Amino acid sequence: MHKAYLVSTGTELLLGKTIDTNSVFLAERLSNMGIKVVGKSVVGDNREHIRNAISLGIKSADIVITTGGLGPTLDDLTKEVACEVLNCPMVKIEAEVNKLREYFRKRNRNMPEINLKQAMFPVDAKIITNNNGTAPGMYLNKSGKTLICLPGPPHEIMPMYIQEVEPLLQKDYGQNNQQSAVVAINIFGPGESQVEEMLAEIVEDPRGCSLALIAKEGEIQLRITAEGKDTSHSQTILNELVDKIKSILGDRIYGYNEDALPVVVANILLQQKLSLAVAESCTGGLLAKMLTDMPGSSEYFWGGAVSYSNEAKTKIMGVNDKIISQYGAVSEPVAREMAIQIRKLAGSEIGVSITGVAGPGGGSEINPVGTVYIGADSQRGTQVKRLYFVGNREAIRTLAAKSALDWLRKLILNNEI
Amino acid sequence: MHKAYLVSTGTELLLGKTIDTNSVFLAERLSNMGIKVVGKSVVGDNREHIRNAISLGIKSADIVITTGGLGPTLDDLTKEVACEVLNCPMVKIEAEVNKLREYFRKRNRNMPEINLKQAMFPVDAKIITNNNGTAPGMYLNKSGKTLICLPGPPHEIMPMYIQEVEPLLQKDYGQNNQQSAVVAINIFGPGESQVEEMLAEIVEDPRGCSLALIAKEGEIQLRITAEGKDTSHSQTILNELVDKIKSILGDRIYGYNEDALPVVVANILLQQKLSLAVAESCTGGLLAKMLTDMPGSSEYFWGGAVSYSNEAKTKIMGVNDKIISQYGAVSEPVAREMAIQIRKLAGSEIGVSITGVAGPGGGSEINPVGTVYIGADSQRGTQVKRLYFVGNREAIRTLAAKSALDWLRKLILNNEI
Repeated sequence: MHKAYLVSTGTELLLGKTIDTNSVFLAERLSNMGIKVVGKSVVGDNREHIRNAISLGIKSADIVITTGGLGPTLDDLTKEVACEVLNCPMVKIEAEVNKLREYFRKRNRNMPEINLKQAMFPVDAKIITNNNGTAPGMYLNKSGKTLICLPGPPHEIMPMYIQEVEPLLQKDYGQNNQQSAVVAINIFGPGESQVEEMLAEIVEDPRGCSLALIAKEGEIQLRITAEGKDTSHSQTILNELVDKIKSILGDRIYGYNEDALPVVVANILLQQKLSLAVAESCTGGLLAKMLTDMPGSSEYFWGGAVSYSNEAKTKIMGVNDKIISQYGAVSEPVAREMAIQIRKLAGSEIGVSITGVAGPGGGSEINPVGTVYIGADSQRGTQVKRLYFVGNREAIRTLAAKSALDWLRKLILNNEI
Repeated sequence: MHKAYLVSTGTELLLGKTIDTNSVFLAERLSNMGIKVVGKSVVGDNREHIRNAISLGIKSADIVITTGGLGPTLDDLTKEVACEVLNCPMVKIEAEVNKLREYFRKRNRNMPEINLKQAMFPVDAKIITNNNGTAPGMYLNKSGKTLICLPGPPHEIMPMYIQEVEPLLQKDYGQNNQQSAVVAINIFGPGESQVEEMLAEIVEDPRGCSLALIAKEGEIQLRITAEGKDTSHSQTILNELVDKIKSILGDRIYGYNEDALPVVVANILLQQKLSLAVAESCTGGLLAKMLTDMPGSSEYFWGGAVSYSNEAKTKIMGVNDKIISQYGAVSEPVAREMAIQIRKLAGSEIGVSITGVAGPGGGSEINPVGTVYIGADSQRGTQVKRLYFVGNREAIRTLAAKSALDWLRKLILNNEI
């Protein structure tokens, strides 16, 4: 099994406030390819510490991936030090200089001379294009080792790794890693221990597979790896187990692998040619934001109202203020009216509403913090559901928005809306 | 400043599924005490890799803290290897043997012989009691270095560290750590290299301070540490430098330390008793979501409209559809109308609008992907700004929402709205 070592640089990663999500991302992608991550180091922007970490990586593994420290400033040292460790001098690459000049020209800014160091690479390095920033990455094979330098910002590194680095690694290190089969099952609704209980029989006897449950932002991901004698055998074992799990979990499963709940819901709306409008109170725009995270969302998403104040509920959506004063803003009748009125305003097939108490203040005996009503209106009528979540403000808001999405998914799939 | 190095052991930390929260916890506690974490390593349960990481730690720092690998099983190697590195033989400590026997007796279980290795320590180690598990920790001073070994489970390590380790560290390393002064300056607007250029003179001569620039989600954080001969001297040096930086960066600085842009804007609105309504197109609810992340947002936030479709702009806000068809949805006049109409609807002091092309599709020659108009309306009139961002959909949306917040901040503070 090939080995990799990760080196993250950045003083901010050592202050206990920023989590090094890059190395988590890379470790997962590498493991999925069958490359074993044997270690990782995080160091500050300090020449000696970076050198020690990279040297240790080169000693322990076939592949060393660094993240961070590719910026133009004086404390961006990673690429320079890594090339020193591997004894590879860098030269100025004209094509990269031109790209940098173009990047600044587009923004009507002068390029500071200091940025030129981002165009320095060893002559035989493959340069990895960065479409989301100025720092290109590099992939370098030297003396039987592979050195990969990538920038620090997650939105830069992730596309670069997936689009360019992974195919190169696949070519250089992927040959022996084909025999296992892997899938992740994405579940919304039940908690971790509930899923574990439902799958008790499978956890006891995973039939040649290994299972891992991961809980994240109110969702559960169940990862299954099958190790058969060859790829097709692994896939057969895996499929059998997945079928069994599907029969137990049913529509609690909303997708597989990279599927995200908002994208799954969007695709269902698109397929069924349904349009949606939303009326949000406690989630304050989060549901609309999730529904528009994907390109092309105008195909199914009309828009919505964020009625944070009671007055907004009345003025922007025409919710009858008598209903609000009679039942309170967090109530079944108000959720109902919000869904009805936003659909009427939009002329869409479906209207969805959320009203609740996200906290920390605002709770009462009848509606403690965490109480959320979600409503759904269509020509078939209006439905409202009362939910209760435990957690901080952020958790309650996230769970409320996701629960509305998941409920909508089930209503459409079960032909109940 | 005293230095620490963290070593986490555990194969599960290298699979990209489990986040090493222990090292985040320790880094924050150590930083708060004035001890600098110069690096950290994560390694699997492998003797050689653990030895390399601990050796590197001993080389780079005064204090090495290991987490994990104190269990009874064969692959629990950390304490053993750490003592080898420091050349400290371990002996069986009878008092610990008795505690282990007691632990198992209480649970009506027989103690497996293998657990006895948890009672092995160097003779001069301080043993750290673990009230939540079987593995005691240790604190060992040897040859001018301090080695601390703690177990892996967060609910075991955290009380052990806070109750026993931190006081020991305070005694050994706390005396001289009172002299530094630290501040972070939060900046929105200019890029990393631009900030560095503006501060070139200070970067060259930081007057006894050290500087670190961190770029994150379109923002820049400048961290400054002053090391004077005592606390008040450090604070004086720091204040002088901060004043100098303030005079250069001016209102590009929106806050300090933990201040977040939406919270800063919220506080300004609260102080000036201004209420706000928003009309969002390409950000799809993100601006409203940011403005309602904080509890108590109903004090200044009325609500808003997410007018993702053109029809929504007309129906929900009353933007004249002729303006949309004449100028296009992404245009100065539409941004203007959106801000005016949402303020009118809300009866709020301020209306803010965003319309743009978040991409990846939908760009044109006049309005390429990344073009965003933001509008602000008050009784003083309406202003519109055209911006251009480069990046993926998520980056463009985040930058658009933050730019609207930051513009609003400046408009209010400069009395221009």
